[in-house]
Amino acid sequence: MSELLAQRLCDELTKLVLIDPHTHINPHSAASKTLADIMGYHYYTELAHSAGMSKWRIEEPGLTPKEKVGRLVEYLCHLDNTIQVNWLVELCRKFFGFTDDRITPDNWEALYDKSATKMAEPDWEDQCLKQSGIERVFLTNDFDDPLTGFDTQRYIPCLRTDDLVFHLTKPEVRARLTKSSHVEFNDAASLRKAIGNLFDHFSKHGVRACAISLPPSFEPKQVDSDEQVNRVLRGIFAGRESNSDEQTILSRFVFWTLAEFCVEFKLPFDLMIGVNRRVYPEGVFQGQDLFDQRVSLIQYKQLFNDFPQVTFPVSVLAAASNHELVSYSWIFPNVVTNAHWWYSNTPPYIELDTRARLTAVPRNKQIGYYSDMYKLEFAWPKFSMYRECLSRVLAQDFVIARKWTEDQALSLGRQVLRGNVETIFGV
Amino acid sequence: MSELLAQRLCDELTKLVLIDPHTHINPHSAASKTLADIMGYHYYTELAHSAGMSKWRIEEPGLTPKEKVGRLVEYLCHLDNTIQVNWLVELCRKFFGFTDDRITPDNWEALYDKSATKMAEPDWEDQCLKQSGIERVFLTNDFDDPLTGFDTQRYIPCLRTDDLVFHLTKPEVRARLTKSSHVEFNDAASLRKAIGNLFDHFSKHGVRACAISLPPSFEPKQVDSDEQVNRVLRGIFAGRESNSDEQTILSRFVFWTLAEFCVEFKLPFDLMIGVNRRVYPEGVFQGQDLFDQRVSLIQYKQLFNDFPQVTFPVSVLAAASNHELVSYSWIFPNVVTNAHWWYSNTPPYIELDTRARLTAVPRNKQIGYYSDMYKLEFAWPKFSMYRECLSRVLAQDFVIARKWTEDQALSLGRQVLRGNVETIFGV
Amino acid sequence: MSELLAQRLCDELTKLVLIDPHTHINPHSAASKTLADIMGYHYYTELAHSAGMSKWRIEEPGLTPKEKVGRLVEYLCHLDNTIQVNWLVELCRKFFGFTDDRITPDNWEALYDKSATKMAEPDWEDQCLKQSGIERVFLTNDFDDPLTGFDTQRYIPCLRTDDLVFHLTKPEVRARLTKSSHVEFNDAASLRKAIGNLFDHFSKHGVRACAISLPPSFEPKQVDSDEQVNRVLRGIFAGRESNSDEQTILSRFVFWTLAEFCVEFKLPFDLMIGVNRRVYPEGVFQGQDLFDQRVSLIQYKQLFNDFPQVTFPVSVLAAASNHELVSYSWIFPNVVTNAHWWYSNTPPYIELDTRARLTAVPRNKQIGYYSDMYKLEFAWPKFSMYRECLSRVLAQDFVIARKWTEDQALSLGRQVLRGNVETIFGV
Repeated sequence: MSELLAQRLCDELTKLVLIDPHTHINPHSAASKTLADIMGYHYYTELAHSAGMSKWRIEEPGLTPKEKVGRLVEYLCHLDNTIQVNWLVELCRKFFGFTDDRITPDNWEALYDKSATKMAEPDWEDQCLKQSGIERVFLTNDFDDPLTGFDTQRYIPCLRTDDLVFHLTKPEVRARLTKSSHVEFNDAASLRKAIGNLFDHFSKHGVRACAISLPPSFEPKQVDSDEQVNRVLRGIFAGRESNSDEQTILSRFVFWTLAEFCVEFKLPFDLMIGVNRRVYPEGVFQGQDLFDQRVSLIQYKQLFNDFPQVTFPVSVLAAASNHELVSYSWIFPNVVTNAHWWYSNTPPYIELDTRARLTAVPRNKQIGYYSDMYKLEFAWPKFSMYRECLSRVLAQDFVIARKWTEDQALSLGRQVLRGNVETIFGV
Repeated sequence: MSELLAQRLCDELTKLVLIDPHTHINPHSAASKTLADIMGYHYYTELAHSAGMSKWRIEEPGLTPKEKVGRLVEYLCHLDNTIQVNWLVELCRKFFGFTDDRITPDNWEALYDKSATKMAEPDWEDQCLKQSGIERVFLTNDFDDPLTGFDTQRYIPCLRTDDLVFHLTKPEVRARLTKSSHVEFNDAASLRKAIGNLFDHFSKHGVRACAISLPPSFEPKQVDSDEQVNRVLRGIFAGRESNSDEQTILSRFVFWTLAEFCVEFKLPFDLMIGVNRRVYPEGVFQGQDLFDQRVSLIQYKQLFNDFPQVTFPVSVLAAASNHELVSYSWIFPNVVTNAHWWYSNTPPYIELDTRARLTAVPRNKQIGYYSDMYKLEFAWPKFSMYRECLSRVLAQDFVIARKWTEDQALSLGRQVLRGNVETIFGV
Repeated sequence: MSELLAQRLCDELTKLVLIDPHTHINPHSAASKTLADIMGYHYYTELAHSAGMSKWRIEEPGLTPKEKVGRLVEYLCHLDNTIQVNWLVELCRKFFGFTDDRITPDNWEALYDKSATKMAEPDWEDQCLKQSGIERVFLTNDFDDPLTGFDTQRYIPCLRTDDLVFHLTKPEVRARLTKSSHVEFNDAASLRKAIGNLFDHFSKHGVRACAISLPPSFEPKQVDSDEQVNRVLRGIFAGRESNSDEQTILSRFVFWTLAEFCVEFKLPFDLMIGVNRRVYPEGVFQGQDLFDQRVSLIQYKQLFNDFPQVTFPVSVLAAASNHELVSYSWIFPNVVTNAHWWYSNTPPYIELDTRARLTAVPRNKQIGYYSDMYKLEFAWPKFSMYRECLSRVLAQDFVIARKWTEDQALSLGRQVLRGNVETIFGV
C-alpha cells in the first residue's frame, strides 16, 4: 500500500515544471550532441576507472566520441548496480527510445546512432527541457564570464567564487580578475573594489546567487585589519611564495568580502561544504576529489551570526553532516538546506536526509534538489530519483504515520521542489 | 501488515503508566495556564524565528499571553511539517477537544479560550498526568534549590550541576554555593565539602540522580593535585580573570568531585554530552545552542574506568554519536543509553537509534525515553512519538525479522519504557 | 510482498557455497568441543559482564566448561534482545536440535549435553562446514606461525601484522621476528629483509592476504629516510624507552614495508580501520576495545596513491565511516569495501551500509561479508544474518525500486557473497 501511495504522489509531483537551482550547464552548448557527451560525465569515467579501466583508455588523445563510448561500455557490466548508471539507462529510455534495461557491447552502437540522430534535431535543447519538465536552469559562472550570448531568463547566472577565495595566489587568476574587474588591485581596498565590480557586472546580467565549494578545513572569519591583507598581497605581488597562514588570511578576506557584497546585492550565498580537492591526483578528469567527514558547521558560527541579511543555502558533502545541517537550519533564520550533493546524492542518503529535514526544518527553508548536471539530459533522471525518494518519505512519514491527506503531502512536496527555489532565490 | 502490527503493539504499550526520568518541570507550577505557556516552549519560538518571524515580535516586553500566541500562529503555516508542531496539535486534540489538523489564524482563538478554561480547572495538573499515563516526574533542580513545598514522591529531585562545573568563576554562582552549602570555601578541600553538603541536602529530599550537560570539547580527568585547584581558586578569589587552562582545571576538579559523591550517595550521574551553548547569541530565549558533531565518548574513558560503582545514563546530542553510545554501553557495565535528546529527538533519528540499541545493548541497560518537558502537557505527545517509533522497531526487527511473539516484544518495550527507569534510578 | 520477496531471494542465496575471507579460526582446532567454546566467544562474556555479571564469575581459574556455561546462562535473560544471542540460539537450533527460542536455566543442561555429543563426533568439523555452506576459510596467522599441520587449501593463511607494526618495541616481538625470519635485524635494511622473509615463508604456504587492524589515530606515511629508522632502532636495541614520535616512525616504516612486499608478492592488504585497544582494561578477555569515530580515510591518501598495484580491502569500525568507505571505493581503483566489522556488524548498520555500497560502488569491488569467527559454528548464523540484510536490500532497492528481475538481483548477491572473494583474493 505504501508503495502504491508513493507512486501516486510521485506521478503527481512529476507534473510540476521545475527550476533547477544549481548546474554546471554551458549555456552556449547546453544539450549533448552524442552519447560521448553524456557518458563523458565524470561519474561514468571515474566509476569505469575504479572498476578497472585504465585512465589511458578513457583519456587517450584523439579518441573519437564513438570509440570513447565503446570503451566505456565494456565496463558498464561492473557498474550496472550503481544509481549513476541507472540515470544513464533511464535517460536513454526517456529520450532515445531505448528499450533494454542494460547498455551492453551488443546494443550500444544502435543506441549511439539513434541518439545522435535525435540530438542532431535543431530544437533538441528545447525538446529536452520540455520533456524533462524544467523551465529555468541556474549556471555556475566563472567570475570573469562575460555572461553574453545566451538567454539569461532561461539560464540564470550564478557567480562561482572558488578561484577568488582559494587561488588568488596564482598569477593567472589575478590577471583574470584585473581584466574582468578593470581594477589594478594591490591592496585590500582595491581588491574589495575589484570584487565589487564583478558583483556589479553579474547583477546587470540577472545573477541570482553567489556560490562556492569549501574544503573541510575552512573556517570563515573576519580578518582583523586590512593591513594584514595588504602585507600578504605585497608578498604575493613581490613574487614570494605565500605560506599557509598567509593564504588563510587572503582566503578569509576574500570570502568575507563576498558575503559583504551579498548583503549589498541581496544575493543568497550557496555554500557547498566539505570537499577535498585532488585527493587522488591520478584519477580521471573530475574524478579526483573526496572528503574528510571531520567537519562541522560550528566553523561557520561567526559567518552565520555576522550576516543575518544573507541567506545561506548550505549543501554538505559528508552524510554525517546532515544532522548538523538540519539543526543549524532549524535555529539560524539565514541557513537553509540545499539539496543532496555529490557523494550524498544517492537514494539511501537522500532518503535519510530528506526524512530528517522534512521532520524538523521549517518547510519554507528547504531547497529539495538541484541536478548539478553538466548536460541537460541529466535533469530528468536525477530529479526523477529525487522525486521517488521524496515521495516515499511523504507517503510513509506524512500520509501514513501522521495521517496527512495526499493533497497536504503534495503541497509540501511542491514547495521543496519548486516554491522555495522561487522565494529563496527571488526568481 | 507491519503497520497494523506496530499499531497493535503501540496500543498495548500506551496502557503502561510511566515515570518520566528527565524533565524541566517546575513543581510549583507544573501544568500550563494558557496556550502561551505551551507555545512559549522554545521549539515554537525558535522555529517561528527561524522561519522568518523577528525576535522582537516574540520577545517584546509587555506582550499578553494571547497576543503572543496570536503572533506565533501566523508562522505555524511554515512549521506544520515539523514533528514539534505535531506535538502541539496532538496535545490540543488530546486535552482540549481540538478537532482540526492545523492551528490557523482562523481557529486559534477558540482553541485559546477553550484550553484556558480547561487549564483553569483546579485539578488540571492531576487530570493532565492521569490522561498522559505519567505517575512520577524527575526534575532538574538548581544546586541551591530548597526542594520544599512540593511532593517529592511525585516530583523527584535531580541535582543539576552545569553551574558548578562550568560557571564557578562567576561571583554569583560562588555566592549561591556558599549560601546553600553553608561553607565558605576557598580551596579544594572546602569546595569539596561545600559540594558534599549539597549532596547531603538533596539526599534528604529524595534525589535520584545527579545530571549535567557537557560541551563537545569537555574531557573529564582527575586533576593531579589539590594544590593545582587551590592556585586557580586563589586567582579567582583575588578577582583575576582565569584563563582557559585554569577553567579546565576547575571544571575537571568539580566534575570529578561530583562523581566521587555519586559513589558515596549511590546516585546515577546523567551525562548529556555534546551541546555548544550560545552558538547563535541573537536567537530567541533557549534557541541559541547547537553542537559540533566532532566529539567522542573516548573522552570519557578515564571517567568510565575510574567509577565502576557509578551508573552513567548517557544522552548524546549528535546523531553521529549514537553508534559510539551503543558500543560503549555494550562494553562498559556502568554506561547505559538514555533516551533521545533534543536535536536527535525526532522520529527519523529515534527510529535508527532505537533499532541500533535494541539490537546490541543488554536490555536492562536502556532507558527508552524522557520527555525533557517544561510543562506537563508535553509528556503525552512526546512519549506517544517515542512509543510509535519503538513499536515500529519491535514489529519489524523483532516480531517479523526474528519471529518473536508479540508478548515477548511487548515485554522488551515495557522494560525500556518503565522497568529500567525503576531499576537504574532506584524508584 | 517485499518480505516474501526478500525471503525468496534469501532462500536462493543460501544455496551458494561460500569462502569466508576473514576469520580467527585455529586450523588445529577449528570446531568447538562444548558449548563453553561457543559461549566463551567474547560477545557473550562481554555482554554478560556489561549486563552485570562480575568478571571474576566468568574468568575464575579452574572453572569447568560446564560451570562457565551455567554461569553465563544466568545472564542471557538480559541479552536475548541482542543479535549476538540470536546467533547463539540459531546455531543451537541448526546444529544441535535445540527447539526452544531462549536458552534458560531450565533448558541449558540438556542442550549442553546434547551438543557435546554432537561435537564429539569425529567428523564434526566436516559436518559443520558442510551444513554451513562454507568450503574455504581464511585464517589470521601470527607472523611467526609455522603454517604446518593443516590443510592450507581449506584453511587459507593470512599474514596478520599488528604486532610488527605496533609492538616491535617489545623485546619478545623482536625475538619472535628474529627467530621466524632467521635475520638478526638491527637497522632498516635488515628489518626490511626480515619482513621479506616472512612474506616468503607465507607465500610458500599459500597466503592470500596481508592484514592489520589500525587505531583511529594512525596515518600511514613513507618515512623520509632509512637513517630515521636506524636511529629509532638503535635506541630500542640500547634498551631506551622510545617516545611516541619514535614509535610513529617505526610503525610507519614497518607498515610501508608491508605494503611494498604486498606489491612484490601480489597480495591484497586488508585494512581494518578504527579500533582503540584497551579502552576498558578491566573488561573481560577480548572485551576491552572500543573506538573513536573521529577518523577519516583521508589519512590513507598517500598510501592509496602510492600503491596502485595493491588492492586494499577496507573494513571500518565506526558506522560514521561507511560513507567515506563508499566514496573512496567509488574513486580509488585499489580500494574495495570489506564486510561489516565488529561494532558495525549488526543488522541496522549492515542494512544501511549495504544499501549505500550497492548503490554507488562498482559491483566487482565489494566483499559482502566475512564471519570474523573464532569457531566454525558461527559461520552459519553470521552469514545468515548478512544474507537476510542483503536480501532485504536487493528486494527493496533493486527488484522493487529499480524493477530488476529476481535473477539479476541474485546475480548481484552472489557476486558480493562469493564471486568477488575469488577475484580479489585470487582463490
